[in-house]
Amino acid sequence: MDLSLPRGIRDIEPQEHLLYERIRQAFYEVADLFNFKMMEPAPIEYLSTLSAKSGEEVAKQIYSFKDKRGRDVGLRFDLTVGLTRYVSSRRDLKPPIKLACYGGAWRYEEPQYGRYRWFHQWDVEIFGSASTEADVEVIDVCDKILRRLELDNLLIQIGERSVVEEYIRKSLRVSSEEKLIELMRALDKVQRKTEGELIKEYEARGVGKDEVNKLLEFGRLHGAPEKMIQVVNELQLKSSEGLGRVWDSLKSRGIANVEYNMSVVRGIDYYTGLVFETVDTRNPQLGSLCGGGRYDLLPKVFGRPDLSATGAAGGIERVALLMTGKAEPRGVVFVAYTDSSLRKNAVKLASELRSEGVKAETALEPKSLGRQLEDASDLGARWTVIIGKRELASGELTLRDMNERNEERLSPEEVRGRLKAG
Amino acid sequence: MDLSLPRGIRDIEPQEHLLYERIRQAFYEVADLFNFKMMEPAPIEYLSTLSAKSGEEVAKQIYSFKDKRGRDVGLRFDLTVGLTRYVSSRRDLKPPIKLACYGGAWRYEEPQYGRYRWFHQWDVEIFGSASTEADVEVIDVCDKILRRLELDNLLIQIGERSVVEEYIRKSLRVSSEEKLIELMRALDKVQRKTEGELIKEYEARGVGKDEVNKLLEFGRLHGAPEKMIQVVNELQLKSSEGLGRVWDSLKSRGIANVEYNMSVVRGIDYYTGLVFETVDTRNPQLGSLCGGGRYDLLPKVFGRPDLSATGAAGGIERVALLMTGKAEPRGVVFVAYTDSSLRKNAVKLASELRSEGVKAETALEPKSLGRQLEDASDLGARWTVIIGKRELASGELTLRDMNERNEERLSPEEVRGRLKAG
Repeated sequence: MDLSLPRGIRDIEPQEHLLYERIRQAFYEVADLFNFKMMEPAPIEYLSTLSAKSGEEVAKQIYSFKDKRGRDVGLRFDLTVGLTRYVSSRRDLKPPIKLACYGGAWRYEEPQYGRYRWFHQWDVEIFGSASTEADVEVIDVCDKILRRLELDNLLIQIGERSVVEEYIRKSLRVSSEEKLIELMRALDKVQRKTEGELIKEYEARGVGKDEVNKLLEFGRLHGAPEKMIQVVNELQLKSSEGLGRVWDSLKSRGIANVEYNMSVVRGIDYYTGLVFETVDTRNPQLGSLCGGGRYDLLPKVFGRPDLSATGAAGGIERVALLMTGKAEPRGVVFVAYTDSSLRKNAVKLASELRSEGVKAETALEPKSLGRQLEDASDLGARWTVIIGKRELASGELTLRDMNERNEERLSPEEVRGRLKAG
Repeated sequence: MDLSLPRGIRDIEPQEHLLYERIRQAFYEVADLFNFKMMEPAPIEYLSTLSAKSGEEVAKQIYSFKDKRGRDVGLRFDLTVGLTRYVSSRRDLKPPIKLACYGGAWRYEEPQYGRYRWFHQWDVEIFGSASTEADVEVIDVCDKILRRLELDNLLIQIGERSVVEEYIRKSLRVSSEEKLIELMRALDKVQRKTEGELIKEYEARGVGKDEVNKLLEFGRLHGAPEKMIQVVNELQLKSSEGLGRVWDSLKSRGIANVEYNMSVVRGIDYYTGLVFETVDTRNPQLGSLCGGGRYDLLPKVFGRPDLSATGAAGGIERVALLMTGKAEPRGVVFVAYTDSSLRKNAVKLASELRSEGVKAETALEPKSLGRQLEDASDLGARWTVIIGKRELASGELTLRDMNERNEERLSPEEVRGRLKAG
């Protein structure tokens, strides 16, 4: 029988699952410290909801299908759409509404290194606050999660759509909305394409070489916030003021591993203000570990122009790749017996140990002591408690150190004390 | 814009999510104590895998659809099929293989009280052990999870398919496999239908009234294990021996809230040995909170007749219903300021408090102190720290007790000490 899985779909096996749980735990703890409320939006939505912002195009990139009554539905492709749909339908909630979610999502895209058709995200969103402070809080919570996971070499790359827009309008004298978007798309490609490729591509679309060059020059601007604020000031862009406020708040929050980067614009039709991405500078091939920004348009599409929105998502698969080997299961104690008549005693002792918080396992089938010790060793047990007839009669147990391969006869209380100590 | 969700699909909102997380946490801790390895099987499988055991019929009850390449796939309807498929494909794993999973699943069925089309389960499975000890370990781990959640009035109802089969073959002199299954189905209905209904239904299928009556009498047998072992012994059924071994192991594990119940047979085509269900005797309308048993046939269908299997699943939605109000979020500390020039100080103090493990929030928009105190109160904050100009100059902060509505001027160190103490 064919036991394979559909392309891009996989099991999360125990070793990787340990990492995911460590990330989830860190996320919950940190999001809670910031007083985000944890929830999970529906995994299946009407296609009309999923495509509300990005149009019918989205159906090609997601798992969409007709349910048994012929309605078009789809699996969520992120957590933001569902959370925004939820908040938009809840007019009783008082802003700011801070929501957080950890969960899986699905996209029907070609699998790549660290990217699957089923993937997991952490997600934080703040609805109903248009302030810079909300944008920075989102950056802050993501940064604290990654730090709690002891990741380093992290660089937070911050862009600001209003600065880019002002630059294009003012310095490139662009007034048409269409051309503005076209040029922002070019900027988005600065980190992935060569200058030559971009000039060629945009000339074909009727954008002059000089304009593209000027834009690329702007897009290459990146560096420490203080320096960049000065540079943008010199370009006489009014929107530079916002960059100053962001930096003030970042400093108050003790966040310094930041650069301002004019090429960071992210999803063009989606974001509306500050945007950011966090990368591991030693593992740039992984892409961003998390990213997000302000997206005031989505709640508007859902009928809530009063709710502005800012948020970010972290990619669990990619973060887990950086943590390989960083989560080990807790050690187990094996309880063995020398004679099958003592099995009950072993089952009982293992049960008592567990009730005292000690991870304990005993053979499920009757086995010789030798086979039991083999099992204990395969399970990576540091200690094996051996119940023997004579020892039991004298009220003692044998404690075997599996590493040192030596044994001691101890009272049950001594054994427990030893095992509870680790 | 229509913000509704497909029928039976919903968001898990914050209050309920807290309960789910408490259950998940208890499950992880307990399953780990028993040395189950945590993993998660794929959420999407080929339909051929999902229907391997139950046949094409299953497609009607699940979310099945064609992917973009026309392959028949479906959303998992439980966690057992995926775990069994995984283990069956991993010939390198040494039995017994103890796996555990917490996750969502989907069924296209009519929603009812406590039952949705998207639901969550905890799941434990032991592959490769045919022993009674494995069956009882599964019961044990489920019992310990429910106890850790402080649920009471729990009754574990245990049935044994081999006893039922022997009774039908011997006392009802049934030899045809077909009729055997027919009669087991009748037994399965004892708790849901009246005697009259069952006699009528089975007479129509050619089963005599006397036979049905005798079967129903047998099905009504239930009670304390010791008593029931005696009753079954008196019926001269050899398989009663197994019931004795189960009871021995339950006692060794300190589990006493058990009855043997001859009508508990569960999914007829699926289970092959011991079966059980745990109910809350004060909330019988909820149905079973968890249940499972031995299902040696599924690994066989997946090409692994060498792997026997026993396991159980718990219903998170139903367990959460019993825990309503039993999980409260941790309290938050609000950091307020008297003048917008002090906002930075508030952001900084909140950040410092969080780094010390105190859940802290500050206003994202500039607001009057009155509005900030209102927000703090809405958030249920017990304490608000107020940063004022004069106090700051003298190196002090104001700590407001939101319950008692009184304020104290304290040094920053005193404030932190107070807040860290809770």
